[in-house]
Amino acid sequence: MIKVVIIGSGNVAQHLIAAFQNPHRPGTEIELVQVYSRQIKSVSHLIDLEKVTNNFNTLVEADIYIISVSDDAIAEVSSNLAFKNRLVVHTSGSVSLHALDENNRRGVFYPLQTFTKNKVVDFNIIPICLESENGIDYELLDKVAKSISGTVYAINSEQRKALHVVAVFVNNFTNHLYQIGQEICQEHQVPFEILRPLIAETVRKIMVLSPQEAQTGPAKRNDTSTIEAHEAFLSNENHLTIYKILTQSIQENGKKL
Amino acid sequence: MIKVVIIGSGNVAQHLIAAFQNPHRPGTEIELVQVYSRQIKSVSHLIDLEKVTNNFNTLVEADIYIISVSDDAIAEVSSNLAFKNRLVVHTSGSVSLHALDENNRRGVFYPLQTFTKNKVVDFNIIPICLESENGIDYELLDKVAKSISGTVYAINSEQRKALHVVAVFVNNFTNHLYQIGQEICQEHQVPFEILRPLIAETVRKIMVLSPQEAQTGPAKRNDTSTIEAHEAFLSNENHLTIYKILTQSIQENGKKL
Ligand SMILES: NC(=O)c1ccc[n+]([C@@H]2O[C@H](COP(=O)([O-])OP(=O)(O)OC[C@H]3O[C@@H](n4cnc5c(N)ncnc54)[C@H](OP(=O)(O)O)[C@@H]3O)[C@@H](O)[C@H]2O)c1
Ligand SMILES: NC(=O)c1ccc[n+]([C@@H]2O[C@H](COP(=O)([O-])OP(=O)(O)OC[C@H]3O[C@@H](n4cnc5c(N)ncnc54)[C@H](OP(=O)(O)O)[C@@H]3O)[C@@H](O)[C@H]2O)c1
Repeated sequence: MIKVVIIGSGNVAQHLIAAFQNPHRPGTEIELVQVYSRQIKSVSHLIDLEKVTNNFNTLVEADIYIISVSDDAIAEVSSNLAFKNRLVVHTSGSVSLHALDENNRRGVFYPLQTFTKNKVVDFNIIPICLESENGIDYELLDKVAKSISGTVYAINSEQRKALHVVAVFVNNFTNHLYQIGQEICQEHQVPFEILRPLIAETVRKIMVLSPQEAQTGPAKRNDTSTIEAHEAFLSNENHLTIYKILTQSIQENGKKL
Repeated sequence: MIKVVIIGSGNVAQHLIAAFQNPHRPGTEIELVQVYSRQIKSVSHLIDLEKVTNNFNTLVEADIYIISVSDDAIAEVSSNLAFKNRLVVHTSGSVSLHALDENNRRGVFYPLQTFTKNKVVDFNIIPICLESENGIDYELLDKVAKSISGTVYAINSEQRKALHVVAVFVNNFTNHLYQIGQEICQEHQVPFEILRPLIAETVRKIMVLSPQEAQTGPAKRNDTSTIEAHEAFLSNENHLTIYKILTQSIQENGKKL
């Protein structure tokens, strides 16, 4: 039996608590033995209150401690742990493994997904990116990760940084392009909803084609007259700047191929 | 019985040919009576060859002629039609209704979707944006559009221009961000596939939340240290420029709220 403790009660911690209590692969013997939360009531809907503590000194013994708190609290929280030489991991894409206090064996357990509280997620298809300081800990992490997810990767710190930056491009930035789209729609009194099927299809394409194969549009075609018409149409300076830079970037890409 | 002729045999024309022969709402009496294609064989897999012509002078009489050719060929093709005062529409998001020859009654039948040849699409959920010069033609267009799609909108030229620009942002530009993501992945030897569940979830969110509600990430949180780490990490000048501009744009948006 592998004993797991989760420290934190935010978005990710809550999803992890749910996932570990309902693992997809019940063959693996994993037990969530305790949860630490500053405010006990924030996890009362997810786990038996007897298993919840708000006191670092009452943390029980376990094989792995998963710290899932705000990035800038990871170092502090890890240094509050009153034990030594146990396996302690964090769940962040952008924080170094070395941010964890060196009193314990360190690792990373990064689920590459965007979580929303109260929205059920299927952990089985969420990639979990693992890193550890030694091979034995990696095996343990791997077992724990595979108990809840079907896609587990060994990812070193450099690769994890890359993934985190890429996540910003494909998640935060694409969402911002939707935002700009909505602003243009509002300005011209068309409902943004009309665009939803196009947005859905764009993503369906990227599930089966490479981004190069999926690329279409005036920039890709070097359709100068359409590009000029669009630029003349955009009245918002910021929208125009972004239109120009992304158009140029697509055109440069075309030249490289 | 409303008689339809389709002129063109590209991506959109082929999907329209298929859709009109298999309408979702069989109650409406619509008949695809003829297809014009420069190369007859390009539509031979879709329609009885007797109904195909490559000669403008043999076009049969119909209630509506849908020109679905390359944007810059629309004017020329419409001026090749050897009849007057019939309803002639194009399928372009970016071309004016006035590009059509004024010998005929003009309109627009713009399906707001990205089409790929040989990939089946469910026309029923594709928004069709209609425009016409007069109300009676609009009613006809509306019937024809509703025979293949469940979402039909009256969209004037100004609104259509806006939609076309927005389509570039939410389709072409987001795809380019996937491309950049893939480039960064390649540079750091991580498989781009790891990002697919995140990409899928980003879009699932936008189907139920507004872009404002869905926005997350370091720019939104004004997390300066992560932003600086990302900027230091990006070795490609072009990626860095795009990172900075989109980050700044998200931050400016935050200030406005
Ligand atoms: N959100 C995502 O989509 C996502 C995806 C992958 C990885 N991650 C990573 O997962 C970790 C948690 O993110 P999240 O989104 O779950 O954050 P969150 O929803 O903002 O929750 C943060 C949690 O940290 C706790 N906390 C903050 N400062 C603390 C301190 N000094 N001592 C003890 N607890 C403290 C908070 O407790 P209170 O509730 O008491 O304030 C809360 O439980 C972060 O490292 C993040 O980078 C997030
Ligand atoms: N693709 C999309 O996702 C999409 C979405 C919405 C709207 N649209 C609009 O739909 C229209 C067609 O686009 P598409 O993607 O189907 O284009 P496409 O696949 O490139 O096909 C262009 C068609 O136009 C024909 N054509 C070109 N010049 C011609 C000429 N001078 N005389 C006669 N026929 C000519 C071509 O004939 P050949 O095969 O003989 O060369 C071909 O059948 C455009 O107005 C476009 O803006 C496209």
